[in-house]
Amino acid sequence: MEITFELGYALDTFYFLICGALVMWMAAGFAMLEAGLVRAKNTTEILTKNIALYSIACIMYMVCGYAIMYGGDIFLSGITADGATGAEEPATYAPSADFFFQVVFVATAMSIVSGAVAERMKLWAFLLFAVVMTGFIYPMEGSWTWGGNPVFGMYTLGDLGFSDFAGSGIVHMAGAAAALAGVLVLGARKGKYTADGKVVAIPGANLPLATLGTFILWMGWFGFNGGSVLATASVESANAVAVVFMNTNAAAAGGSVAALLIARVLFGKADLTMALNGALAGLVAITAEPSTPTALQATIFGAIGGVLVVFSIIGLDKLKIDDPVGAISVHGVVGLLGLLLVPITNGENSTFSGQIIGALTIFVWVFVTSFIAWTIIKAIIGVRVSEEEEYEGVDMSECGLEAYPDFTTKRS
Amino acid sequence: MEITFELGYALDTFYFLICGALVMWMAAGFAMLEAGLVRAKNTTEILTKNIALYSIACIMYMVCGYAIMYGGDIFLSGITADGATGAEEPATYAPSADFFFQVVFVATAMSIVSGAVAERMKLWAFLLFAVVMTGFIYPMEGSWTWGGNPVFGMYTLGDLGFSDFAGSGIVHMAGAAAALAGVLVLGARKGKYTADGKVVAIPGANLPLATLGTFILWMGWFGFNGGSVLATASVESANAVAVVFMNTNAAAAGGSVAALLIARVLFGKADLTMALNGALAGLVAITAEPSTPTALQATIFGAIGGVLVVFSIIGLDKLKIDDPVGAISVHGVVGLLGLLLVPITNGENSTFSGQIIGALTIFVWVFVTSFIAWTIIKAIIGVRVSEEEEYEGVDMSECGLEAYPDFTTKRS
Amino acid sequence: MEITFELGYALDTFYFLICGALVMWMAAGFAMLEAGLVRAKNTTEILTKNIALYSIACIMYMVCGYAIMYGGDIFLSGITADGATGAEEPATYAPSADFFFQVVFVATAMSIVSGAVAERMKLWAFLLFAVVMTGFIYPMEGSWTWGGNPVFGMYTLGDLGFSDFAGSGIVHMAGAAAALAGVLVLGARKGKYTADGKVVAIPGANLPLATLGTFILWMGWFGFNGGSVLATASVESANAVAVVFMNTNAAAAGGSVAALLIARVLFGKADLTMALNGALAGLVAITAEPSTPTALQATIFGAIGGVLVVFSIIGLDKLKIDDPVGAISVHGVVGLLGLLLVPITNGENSTFSGQIIGALTIFVWVFVTSFIAWTIIKAIIGVRVSEEEEYEGVDMSECGLEAYPDFTTKRS
Repeated sequence: MEITFELGYALDTFYFLICGALVMWMAAGFAMLEAGLVRAKNTTEILTKNIALYSIACIMYMVCGYAIMYGGDIFLSGITADGATGAEEPATYAPSADFFFQVVFVATAMSIVSGAVAERMKLWAFLLFAVVMTGFIYPMEGSWTWGGNPVFGMYTLGDLGFSDFAGSGIVHMAGAAAALAGVLVLGARKGKYTADGKVVAIPGANLPLATLGTFILWMGWFGFNGGSVLATASVESANAVAVVFMNTNAAAAGGSVAALLIARVLFGKADLTMALNGALAGLVAITAEPSTPTALQATIFGAIGGVLVVFSIIGLDKLKIDDPVGAISVHGVVGLLGLLLVPITNGENSTFSGQIIGALTIFVWVFVTSFIAWTIIKAIIGVRVSEEEEYEGVDMSECGLEAYPDFTTKRS
Repeated sequence: MEITFELGYALDTFYFLICGALVMWMAAGFAMLEAGLVRAKNTTEILTKNIALYSIACIMYMVCGYAIMYGGDIFLSGITADGATGAEEPATYAPSADFFFQVVFVATAMSIVSGAVAERMKLWAFLLFAVVMTGFIYPMEGSWTWGGNPVFGMYTLGDLGFSDFAGSGIVHMAGAAAALAGVLVLGARKGKYTADGKVVAIPGANLPLATLGTFILWMGWFGFNGGSVLATASVESANAVAVVFMNTNAAAAGGSVAALLIARVLFGKADLTMALNGALAGLVAITAEPSTPTALQATIFGAIGGVLVVFSIIGLDKLKIDDPVGAISVHGVVGLLGLLLVPITNGENSTFSGQIIGALTIFVWVFVTSFIAWTIIKAIIGVRVSEEEEYEGVDMSECGLEAYPDFTTKRS
Repeated sequence: MEITFELGYALDTFYFLICGALVMWMAAGFAMLEAGLVRAKNTTEILTKNIALYSIACIMYMVCGYAIMYGGDIFLSGITADGATGAEEPATYAPSADFFFQVVFVATAMSIVSGAVAERMKLWAFLLFAVVMTGFIYPMEGSWTWGGNPVFGMYTLGDLGFSDFAGSGIVHMAGAAAALAGVLVLGARKGKYTADGKVVAIPGANLPLATLGTFILWMGWFGFNGGSVLATASVESANAVAVVFMNTNAAAAGGSVAALLIARVLFGKADLTMALNGALAGLVAITAEPSTPTALQATIFGAIGGVLVVFSIIGLDKLKIDDPVGAISVHGVVGLLGLLLVPITNGENSTFSGQIIGALTIFVWVFVTSFIAWTIIKAIIGVRVSEEEEYEGVDMSECGLEAYPDFTTKRS
């Protein structure tokens, strides 16, 4: 082989692996964010869910998810240790690196669910759902989008004008759709909504953790969006990756500041949790197309996401949809926004109608199949802990371990 | 284009982006360090400041800071999505990657300020200052140094024998100068210094967070110093980057051990916060020139920084300059040390007189303009919270959210 | 030089540096893991140990460790700033990058020790041991393995069929052997084992920190194992690195799920700390050979590690070997497992007898020399704090600082 081909192959592979490692790091981000936003008594359980869901995602995607989404054999048995795939066309980067980069995306989609159903769902019911979601539901919709399989007759979503660069819809809105189905099957936390219709604020127990989680996600998102260029070993692709890093950062900054300002106007205070959700909303908003906007546009798109997420969180509470960490708003509502923003800067590859068709396809598929899965799990083992367990906190009932056993707490 | 040119371009761009992501990660480091070193009642506010200042830095540097420092158009409008800059000379790496790497440096400079003014400054006054600092004060001094603009008649600081590889002075001492001006305008925390001149220790509420923050900064510093080689795609530059990584690590190690030992001698105990500040001091000390010392020299330079920072923290308290996290000592006093160490190993590019001229230029500019900015902000909206708010903690008054609402605390 | 040689050199160097930075990051992982698993009253001290041991490792390995292990001069004086080593054969990557990558491994080995001896060892005794371990004990066994020096007459361990890709034995089991010697010299914590032979559970004070630490280690391990391919700038080596990343991730996932399930069976609950130790066990198990298994094999190997670690933790408690964080089980017992798994997928480079000989050589050397070192330290300055200090917590007696001074705690 040409030495220059080898160098390009090596650089692209290394780029995939580092981006993948950054996305893996997002699992820690979700874990810290969610652990910071729940009450102390439900912290061990949410941590357990987070490490277990990541692990289950890795196993199920290896078992069958990757094969469903991109073809090939179950157990990745087509990918040998020397990197051969058996495909006729030679790869331009290591096939194992491709799997590694894809598998961490599945885990991200699943991480979104755990926050929304926090503080009242049975741990094993959640993990059972994780098996279905990461082994089947996500890979199926992934096969219709990034997998390039036709979904309407012989047309792929791409043929219909749908484009989702790094997964505002395919990953984030999909995760939110599964979460929404779970929340509807599960119901709200006891005490969240009073009989006379008031919303009770239930503050998170550890805001430094939530902030750390947000920074981790922000950092990991460089891999999430940057890696989605899928190559870096040429001037053109290197430029694209650089623009994506710049815009990803800009959108998060715009979202954070916008949410902070809008919360100041609405609540009179500098609400940290809104600033954090605003940053994440900015990141989700730019994810569907981070490569074509200018830095200014990316900042504005992020800011729109930051404003939207504040109103969405307030709105979902009005609808009594109880999402302790705001995941459905951040990833679902803003995920949809992200899809709809694409044609503004990338009319070449997307149309508004195509984006709407794609969004509907993903949402309907994931929501309906998830609803069915949650309902079946509910029928078999139940999805909700007992009222007493919820009151005492799920840490003791599900995990047998307090998260902070040395510290005296105000809330039981 | 030549394929080898493309590969070099791609590798240099990727290197910039990864180093930039590591420097972005330092924002999380400062947030955790500061959140760990303030009292529980002031934690939400310092977290809010940290995420907001980072976001503001990214926006302001995009709006005008980068243009002031390096030329080009406001809103980065000269940098298009395909990487073109309009410059005649073709770039050897993506222009967007250059912006991304530079923008995280501005945020670092601003992060230094937040710790020093913690626990008594109004949040919105701080954020207003962040706009001025990141959009104007830092970019101006940056234009005279890394920007290469003449500052004394037709002479640049470089012409006068000033060299600051990665910013001991340009970033760290500059941040500390702005912080010092803020602290002088603001005054000390209530109860920090008693009427009879005693210094009251106010321990930080969460030392694991402070330690985590230090490790994050240590890691991020590899990008901060390593990326400042500005290229890696040749044997010469790769060697330089490798030496910089090795020496950055060595200096931090030297600083940490030296501070731990000197604190043991002075206080009789293994003072963790001094070990942490020692590591950071080692990092600041090597930042002005990490590429020419040997590993042994780097360790020694770091150790000198580690010793100096302990005495500086004690000394500033004697002067009643109240800096809750020691930022002025770590970044300012040791930043100056870093500049003065350069000629020892890099006499080719620097002289002691040049280093002193450069240090004075940076300090006077940043301190004076910051002092003016703080004074104007004080006149318009005030910089200090009320005595009652300070006593109750700024979390409730500024953010309306406790950082640890589930836990009972000893200090109100 | 050829431009393609330069690009390969640059890419390999950059790869080493990034992998090294990830391994450095593991120091933060150990710090957080251990800080989360000890009681609140012993947290400052374990944090101090962690930052100090890392720093000491960096200094001692620079002073003499690297020279002992790989030859060359003390103080790295053979490695000049321009990357020259004086070796006749030209390097294919920067010598400083090699040192940087190697030095973070020493620190990892030493980090393993701190957790096992937590909550009752004198801080300065520990740091003294760190000097001996990182400057002599580890480098000696490193010289017989990765250093390629003969250990039995003229035979190297490699000649005898020993292979340890990234250090299941050389790093992890070695660290555990030193820890075991320390624990035996030190004895169990007061109250851990009752007079009538019951084991008292002493839960860790901060499980979010422990979880964060595990995620950090998981992420850092990509550098630990991935960097151990020692090159990436060709199709063959890029494929190997990609397989290593994929398998490292798979093994951790397998270990985590297996430990969670086995703990559920044994204890009836979803034990988070076992899930965390299971993930780490999976990582240790794959470390001796992450490049030859398939992803399915890696998952299974990790799962075996995850099951083994649960039984090992229970078993060591039966033997009254008190290891507060389970380090001896995770790194020692599973480290041995990792060595024994190598011949299953890499019979070309290893034999079971070779693995056993190598494991014994490492264990006997490290255990015996460590035992001697601990015993001498005990004789000179003592290794154990007083009973009263242990009861009050070592934070106040050793560091003079509480880790969480603002919070009221249940346990003194």
